[in-house]
Amino acid sequence: MPEDCVFCMIRDGEIPSDILHRDQYCFVIRDINPVAPTHLLVIPLEHFEYLAELVSDFDQTVAAMLSAARDMASAEGVSGSGYRLMLNQGRDGGQEVPHIHLHVMGGRHLGGFGIPSERTS
Amino acid sequence: MPEDCVFCMIRDGEIPSDILHRDQYCFVIRDINPVAPTHLLVIPLEHFEYLAELVSDFDQTVAAMLSAARDMASAEGVSGSGYRLMLNQGRDGGQEVPHIHLHVMGGRHLGGFGIPSERTS
Repeated sequence: MPEDCVFCMIRDGEIPSDILHRDQYCFVIRDINPVAPTHLLVIPLEHFEYLAELVSDFDQTVAAMLSAARDMASAEGVSGSGYRLMLNQGRDGGQEVPHIHLHVMGGRHLGGFGIPSERTS
Repeated sequence: MPEDCVFCMIRDGEIPSDILHRDQYCFVIRDINPVAPTHLLVIPLEHFEYLAELVSDFDQTVAAMLSAARDMASAEGVSGSGYRLMLNQGRDGGQEVPHIHLHVMGGRHLGGFGIPSERTS
C-alpha cells in the first residue's frame, strides 16, 4: 500500500473515522462530501486501485462489498425507497481515491446517469 | 418471472439481441440507449428486482456480475482509460427495468455523480 493512502490510514485507525461496518474483506464509512442524505463508501481492506488488479479473493471481496452495501442500505432505511451503487474506475470513470471504493447513495431521488451530455438535455 | 420482462425475454431468445457474454449466473448486452461509447448491461439470469430479494447464490451471482463487468471493460478497451459501474435500485435510485442490472459505462469522461444538485454547480 502507498503510505499516504487515506483509506488505508482509516482502516488502520491512523485517521479517526466512524467505521459503520467491518468484516473480513471490507469496511464502510460515510463519504466526507456526501451528495445525498445517505452516502457511504464500501472499501476493501486490501489496497488496490482497480478491479483488474484484484486476482486473489476476487469473488469473496466483491461479494462482501455488495453484501455490505445491501445491508447498509437497509440499515440506513433507504432499501425500500431506493439507492444507487457506483464504482468509479480510473480517469474516465472519475475515480478520486486510488483505493477502490463502492459508493452507496440514497435518501433522495438521484436522477440520471450524471454524465455531461445529460446535463444539457 | 413476470411474462413481460424484457430482460427475461432477451435471456430466453424471445427478443433478438447480441449477447456479448453469458455464464452460469449472468449475461451481457449493450444498452439500447447508450450514454457513453461503451454502455453495457450485466444482467443476472435469474429474475429479481432488488439485491435484497436475492437470497440464494447471492455471493456467486454478484461475483459473476462484477467479474463479467471487469472482463467486458477490458474487452471493450476501456479498462485502462477508466469506466463506471452503476447499479440503480428502486425509485430513488432511478431503476428503469425491474430486473436488476449493472451498467458498465466507459469510452469518455463520465463526470460527477449525476444527481440534481450537481447540475447547478
